[in-house]
Amino acid sequence: MPNRDIFANISPLDHRYARNEAQFTELEKYLSENATIKYQAQVELALVKVLAKRGIAPAKSVAEVEAAIASLTTAEVYAEESKTRHNIRALVNCIQAKVSPATRPYIHFTATSYDIVDTANSLRYQKATQNLILPYLKKLQQSWAQISLREKDQIQIGRTHGQHAVPVTFGFTMAEYVSRLGERIETISVQAEKLIGKFAGAVGAYNASSIFFEDPEEFEAEVLAELGLKPGEHSTQIIAAEPLTDFLHSLVSTFSVLAAFADDMRQLQRSEIAEIGEYFAAEQVGSSTMPHKRNPINYENVKSLWKAFMPRMITVYLDQLSEHQRDLTNSASSRFIPELITALISAAARLTKVSSRMVVDRENLAKNFAQNKQMIVAEPLYILLAAHGHPDAHEAVRKLTLKAQKTDLSLEELVEETTELRDYWQQFSQKQQQLILKPEKYTGIAAQKTEKIVKRWQQKFNYDLKLEG
Amino acid sequence: MPNRDIFANISPLDHRYARNEAQFTELEKYLSENATIKYQAQVELALVKVLAKRGIAPAKSVAEVEAAIASLTTAEVYAEESKTRHNIRALVNCIQAKVSPATRPYIHFTATSYDIVDTANSLRYQKATQNLILPYLKKLQQSWAQISLREKDQIQIGRTHGQHAVPVTFGFTMAEYVSRLGERIETISVQAEKLIGKFAGAVGAYNASSIFFEDPEEFEAEVLAELGLKPGEHSTQIIAAEPLTDFLHSLVSTFSVLAAFADDMRQLQRSEIAEIGEYFAAEQVGSSTMPHKRNPINYENVKSLWKAFMPRMITVYLDQLSEHQRDLTNSASSRFIPELITALISAAARLTKVSSRMVVDRENLAKNFAQNKQMIVAEPLYILLAAHGHPDAHEAVRKLTLKAQKTDLSLEELVEETTELRDYWQQFSQKQQQLILKPEKYTGIAAQKTEKIVKRWQQKFNYDLKLEG
Amino acid sequence: MPNRDIFANISPLDHRYARNEAQFTELEKYLSENATIKYQAQVELALVKVLAKRGIAPAKSVAEVEAAIASLTTAEVYAEESKTRHNIRALVNCIQAKVSPATRPYIHFTATSYDIVDTANSLRYQKATQNLILPYLKKLQQSWAQISLREKDQIQIGRTHGQHAVPVTFGFTMAEYVSRLGERIETISVQAEKLIGKFAGAVGAYNASSIFFEDPEEFEAEVLAELGLKPGEHSTQIIAAEPLTDFLHSLVSTFSVLAAFADDMRQLQRSEIAEIGEYFAAEQVGSSTMPHKRNPINYENVKSLWKAFMPRMITVYLDQLSEHQRDLTNSASSRFIPELITALISAAARLTKVSSRMVVDRENLAKNFAQNKQMIVAEPLYILLAAHGHPDAHEAVRKLTLKAQKTDLSLEELVEETTELRDYWQQFSQKQQQLILKPEKYTGIAAQKTEKIVKRWQQKFNYDLKLEG
Amino acid sequence: MPNRDIFANISPLDHRYARNEAQFTELEKYLSENATIKYQAQVELALVKVLAKRGIAPAKSVAEVEAAIASLTTAEVYAEESKTRHNIRALVNCIQAKVSPATRPYIHFTATSYDIVDTANSLRYQKATQNLILPYLKKLQQSWAQISLREKDQIQIGRTHGQHAVPVTFGFTMAEYVSRLGERIETISVQAEKLIGKFAGAVGAYNASSIFFEDPEEFEAEVLAELGLKPGEHSTQIIAAEPLTDFLHSLVSTFSVLAAFADDMRQLQRSEIAEIGEYFAAEQVGSSTMPHKRNPINYENVKSLWKAFMPRMITVYLDQLSEHQRDLTNSASSRFIPELITALISAAARLTKVSSRMVVDRENLAKNFAQNKQMIVAEPLYILLAAHGHPDAHEAVRKLTLKAQKTDLSLEELVEETTELRDYWQQFSQKQQQLILKPEKYTGIAAQKTEKIVKRWQQKFNYDLKLEG
Repeated sequence: MPNRDIFANISPLDHRYARNEAQFTELEKYLSENATIKYQAQVELALVKVLAKRGIAPAKSVAEVEAAIASLTTAEVYAEESKTRHNIRALVNCIQAKVSPATRPYIHFTATSYDIVDTANSLRYQKATQNLILPYLKKLQQSWAQISLREKDQIQIGRTHGQHAVPVTFGFTMAEYVSRLGERIETISVQAEKLIGKFAGAVGAYNASSIFFEDPEEFEAEVLAELGLKPGEHSTQIIAAEPLTDFLHSLVSTFSVLAAFADDMRQLQRSEIAEIGEYFAAEQVGSSTMPHKRNPINYENVKSLWKAFMPRMITVYLDQLSEHQRDLTNSASSRFIPELITALISAAARLTKVSSRMVVDRENLAKNFAQNKQMIVAEPLYILLAAHGHPDAHEAVRKLTLKAQKTDLSLEELVEETTELRDYWQQFSQKQQQLILKPEKYTGIAAQKTEKIVKRWQQKFNYDLKLEG
Repeated sequence: MPNRDIFANISPLDHRYARNEAQFTELEKYLSENATIKYQAQVELALVKVLAKRGIAPAKSVAEVEAAIASLTTAEVYAEESKTRHNIRALVNCIQAKVSPATRPYIHFTATSYDIVDTANSLRYQKATQNLILPYLKKLQQSWAQISLREKDQIQIGRTHGQHAVPVTFGFTMAEYVSRLGERIETISVQAEKLIGKFAGAVGAYNASSIFFEDPEEFEAEVLAELGLKPGEHSTQIIAAEPLTDFLHSLVSTFSVLAAFADDMRQLQRSEIAEIGEYFAAEQVGSSTMPHKRNPINYENVKSLWKAFMPRMITVYLDQLSEHQRDLTNSASSRFIPELITALISAAARLTKVSSRMVVDRENLAKNFAQNKQMIVAEPLYILLAAHGHPDAHEAVRKLTLKAQKTDLSLEELVEETTELRDYWQQFSQKQQQLILKPEKYTGIAAQKTEKIVKRWQQKFNYDLKLEG
Repeated sequence: MPNRDIFANISPLDHRYARNEAQFTELEKYLSENATIKYQAQVELALVKVLAKRGIAPAKSVAEVEAAIASLTTAEVYAEESKTRHNIRALVNCIQAKVSPATRPYIHFTATSYDIVDTANSLRYQKATQNLILPYLKKLQQSWAQISLREKDQIQIGRTHGQHAVPVTFGFTMAEYVSRLGERIETISVQAEKLIGKFAGAVGAYNASSIFFEDPEEFEAEVLAELGLKPGEHSTQIIAAEPLTDFLHSLVSTFSVLAAFADDMRQLQRSEIAEIGEYFAAEQVGSSTMPHKRNPINYENVKSLWKAFMPRMITVYLDQLSEHQRDLTNSASSRFIPELITALISAAARLTKVSSRMVVDRENLAKNFAQNKQMIVAEPLYILLAAHGHPDAHEAVRKLTLKAQKTDLSLEELVEETTELRDYWQQFSQKQQQLILKPEKYTGIAAQKTEKIVKRWQQKFNYDLKLEG
Repeated sequence: MPNRDIFANISPLDHRYARNEAQFTELEKYLSENATIKYQAQVELALVKVLAKRGIAPAKSVAEVEAAIASLTTAEVYAEESKTRHNIRALVNCIQAKVSPATRPYIHFTATSYDIVDTANSLRYQKATQNLILPYLKKLQQSWAQISLREKDQIQIGRTHGQHAVPVTFGFTMAEYVSRLGERIETISVQAEKLIGKFAGAVGAYNASSIFFEDPEEFEAEVLAELGLKPGEHSTQIIAAEPLTDFLHSLVSTFSVLAAFADDMRQLQRSEIAEIGEYFAAEQVGSSTMPHKRNPINYENVKSLWKAFMPRMITVYLDQLSEHQRDLTNSASSRFIPELITALISAAARLTKVSSRMVVDRENLAKNFAQNKQMIVAEPLYILLAAHGHPDAHEAVRKLTLKAQKTDLSLEELVEETTELRDYWQQFSQKQQQLILKPEKYTGIAAQKTEKIVKRWQQKFNYDLKLEG
């Protein structure tokens, strides 16, 4: 019975996180079991095309196979598998049953199951990358770039160890993620391109194909070229694990960047910090009992999904080991790879939505900045003292700040009343003194750098940004 | 009702591994999203029961809520959640809409969402343990116990480092897994019993319930008692993570035992060893191109599922951290717990099926044993020489075995022709000499121990074993 | 060359985290390679003791072996191993070289290497638990219990999702960790007791020992009893993996509790929250360039160590699989277990030190609590309205809080001016009205519960607490 | 100088796996705590060099700092750290104490600690890659390439699922690892080159350096250029985590390739397969009680180390998250990175040694191949039948092989006596018939492909191979 109440499903991906109709339709194309079968059938078709081109299979076989796979359903293949207990044999049988006897021998001709399975997976992960992963991630990056540009001059206290350090701008804070995500997008794209196909037979030595072809590697290359893929240098029954391992690492490490962003934002949304918030729907409930709460549930969700999916890299590394010309212990495990892709896309889509609604609270940014305004200038003061020849500037300023915390005097006042510092102070340039007196100027090149980063990615990915911010 | 082609699902659990109709129906009861909602509703009902008993809610409210939740569908709750953006508020709203105004205030009375969520999960994991996990695992253990008993005297060469060591019996080999799985079954049972409930409100301090009850802890205990649960010592918004962490560890470490068994069996099924096999259906296909193959696909599947699910303990450990009175970053991640249970049950069911069909190849067992028969007695020979006073027995035997490998002489013949050893040999008892001459007797107490282990678990779990073996 | 500059070491445990002289001396006793050899020698001694008791080995052999192992150095054993390439054979050779020819045959008599290795490890992990792990953890728990008791009435805003929720007391916040750590301490203690020994020979079937003993299991039990250990139900060449797996899980899950505490505290130490701090030494530097900073470096260190060591459970699960009667692929990996113990103790010691210096900032606690004082009462207000029959209390209060945020009116004032709420308000009891008016009273039973928890653990572990707080 | 008995160390890396004098001396240069300090001092020196070039620091300062760091000891820095509680401040203080007052202010000028720490680590990991990791891995690859070439024509039964499949050559089996390791070596090299440095100050906005320099990014680039490094696009207090994450992934995934090889070899060394072995030293002990055993302990060790170190990628992913402009929770954890490098090198060195001694047992290779000789040709027979128009070739051959197993007839004889197959057979070409009759010819292009792969890597890495094999 191929239809089922979705809430009878076990996986939250199937009953909760991939329910949105429009999004689900996209995902299904590459990541469902229907997609698995569809892509495997495409590989069988590519084989027949090359056989027909080479004059081995009859010319009509291509059209026959195209028609056969167009009418093929996953349910049919599964019904056949319940007899053969072998999924690819089942697929082959189903296709063969739909074509003429003349075409039949050329279905799966000289192929081993994993010529089909591994090649089909490389193909659909490439397509999923081009059509889903990259577009979703770029849309997210664009939403961040937009905020980054708009907020490039908005002062924000920089925080290290959760402690106020020296200032940045909120745009610069966002630019971190524009840059990190952009770099990951490029990495994913490169790694997806490196995914390879395979048509080297049962143990990778082209045993079967070399019966018929003088040039079995050339034949392999032709079949894969039909699909836009290339072969690797060596395969066994399966493709060498590393290209897929690198691709999945690129996804997992990207997921970590999303989680890092989510973590930062939910912290900035804390009651005491409250520098950003999420626009709240009028009907939305924050808590079942505390109606006043504005919980960062979307950021929490992304962090949580990352915790669920990041550890799956362990499985990927385990699957690099396969005994001799292969054991099958990577078969069930690798069937879960589409879940990782789904979760990453779900997280990206959610962050895009919540980023587009991000509310920046300028009052709180100012208030938080003001809290340690006096202390912030300790760094430039120490550096200026040192640069003007103070023999022990770090220690001098450390003592000064302890004193500042105990009295109500500003650092400037304290400098004035400290004889040994006063002389140095007078050697400072006007601009340098101003920096100590107006800590909000002490943002280095945060704004310029922000703009530079945003523009670079805008050009690379050809974004449309509202440049007025 | 949102029905969907199951092959449109993303998760292999939903489209492949939990498709069997009968099995799926069982799993759905505890592990689907329908089950989530059903158990949460049960907790809301337990609350109303206690409120009615205490005379706070009207007496009729219990029947009303029972009727309400009987007619409640997951789809309704999700429709409401799309408005409230809060899943428990949605549930509460749906129940409230189905009861009289007099009952309405007592739905969720003084509760926080996680009083419901965490309690419901503890409850359904306990039920899933009692009704699914333990029965499936015991059935598996029973199938192993049966083989173990039948094969208790069947000699098998023991292997360490993949090298022939000294003999055991195949029953003893199986008894390892009877024992290890039995011990894990007991551990799972204990840990499931330790899962706790919670009714302590938004931050765990009984803030809301103490407005109405002099004895909020007592009230909590009463609500939980309705469900057969107990409270923990301290909770925040959520239950302390450790009981669930321990429970999941018990599942994962059990999964490892299944994987260890699967690994052993697929190795024993190697072409060169072939001591066991699986009965092959007449129609079954071993390979899409190599029709002669008999692949251990079920053992491979179990190992592979374990590789996919074992790393999830990382998520569980990550979820032990939740900021202050809780952050929500364990919410999405813990929704995947039912998947782990599903995979474990799927693996157990598969192993039970394949174990019940296990074919023991006595010829190959004998052939493999014979291969190093001469060498096997090196150990008892060395020990007997040492015990009879040889000053450097280990070294003497090591040299003897090197010599034996180069010549065609048996160890016995070599002992006879080695002057320094001959004298010791003559001091050996008849029985001791026999042991060297008949290595197949050198199985220690393998058979007795096997029987003892099997009988112990048979009694504990009250199995029906065919005692003739 | 057995001496080396410690800063030439690779592992931070050896050059940085276990450098403190006093602490290191303790750790070395159980966790260094010297300890490995020492405990293995103890097992060889236990064997000779039982052989002498049974009249098999000469009576004098016990004293000889005691003397031999007293003078044994690790360097000697390693020198011998460089010849034999087998560590236990090397140990045996070294002991044999130091005893009389009459005693020599009884060293390692009927034993296999892993009778010694696994038994020695169980023994030293038990001793490390009793003498290091439990004392260090109890000292930490005691320091938390002390703070918890002292702060049981100190109001603190409860936080969920990083958002202000309803109040707790800081003592209650600390009591969470007193409770969770206490429970883990008990778990570790139980799991350490379950570690088992083994004396069943090369493949676990007592092949060798049954040549000499009618009752090889009894003999095994006697040897282990000398060491205070018990055998398991079944072993192969090695002990079944589960007891050690459970023990290590108990350590890792405890580490997570320490990390959870560390995370909470470093967040509470944020500049904007600043409810707690660490007493800072006058000379201490917070930042190399920002002399004013007070970084929570100790809490960060504990979180960081946890990130480094928690994933090691993956190794432990992998080591549950060992082919047939064992492969050796758990040998090198299990040599790293002492590192996990070292890291846990290092983290506990560090947290004890920093907890003992914890500074509680009552002003900031009050300030943070005041920030959302008005909003806090939304929860009790909603519950009271519901309890007094308001048909849609949650929604009513949600709207009220939105209004409160836009105006300057207090919830009370808003209730007064909202006709539909005013009537309910007047039905509230005096005490109930007070709760709305004085949110600081809305702490449920936080204080009583705190005291109860602290006292329970104080009695269990027999602490000395300053009860005045 | 704090010297310590190495056997008092906790980590097996320090007391066992990195003990070999020559190897240890190499490792220490990059991976010890001495190396940490040495590289950090180099970064401070690079800064002074640029300041002197720009005429900010006095010309003599470079020589002074060079002299200072030449005489600097790790013990000095640690002694100072015990006062400052800040490791980089301690380093700075130590250097400052050794230079003239005129130079002093320019030590650490405008820098934050992590400008030094992160840059120094990138630098030493690059150097360790060039001078340790790549040479060790290439030496290993070369030893495999040598065997591969020598054995390119040596027939071996291919194995999938541990079952005999169709033949390869042993050289082809080895070529898998030549290819996979070669590809990883290139990946490591690329990723090491991508490691970046940083000189952007406390929060990454060049706050301090922009006080003094119009072009702080240019200044950063100059300082890094002194060290052969480049800056990233954006940093906070720390370098963006991804380049290091990718580098460590390249190491871990390489480790998996070594483990995969080790696993294959230890399986091929099984008593029943015994196609390869390790040359055994005359003195070497295989087992403490079974003197005849030849255990694959080196392969087991490599698999075991991989199990210990592979899970550390989890830590790396966790460290991608750092709050705001950074928290310090990646500090302790990243101190363990040198351990991963050490373990990988140790595994590579061990495999090189054991590979150089690999004994190939041609008799056993022949014997194992012969075992299923008849069955092996099932694949080409099926394909040829299909190609010659048999409508259901797979099924026909499946039945034939079942029949072959029950009778003593060869496939050829069975074909002859099966009317429906005989006609097809006669259409086979001479060469095709030969393939069925001589299965040892059915190795596809294994030999040519082996040679091609080996030669490609030989040219790339400029190896010296004995081309006679």
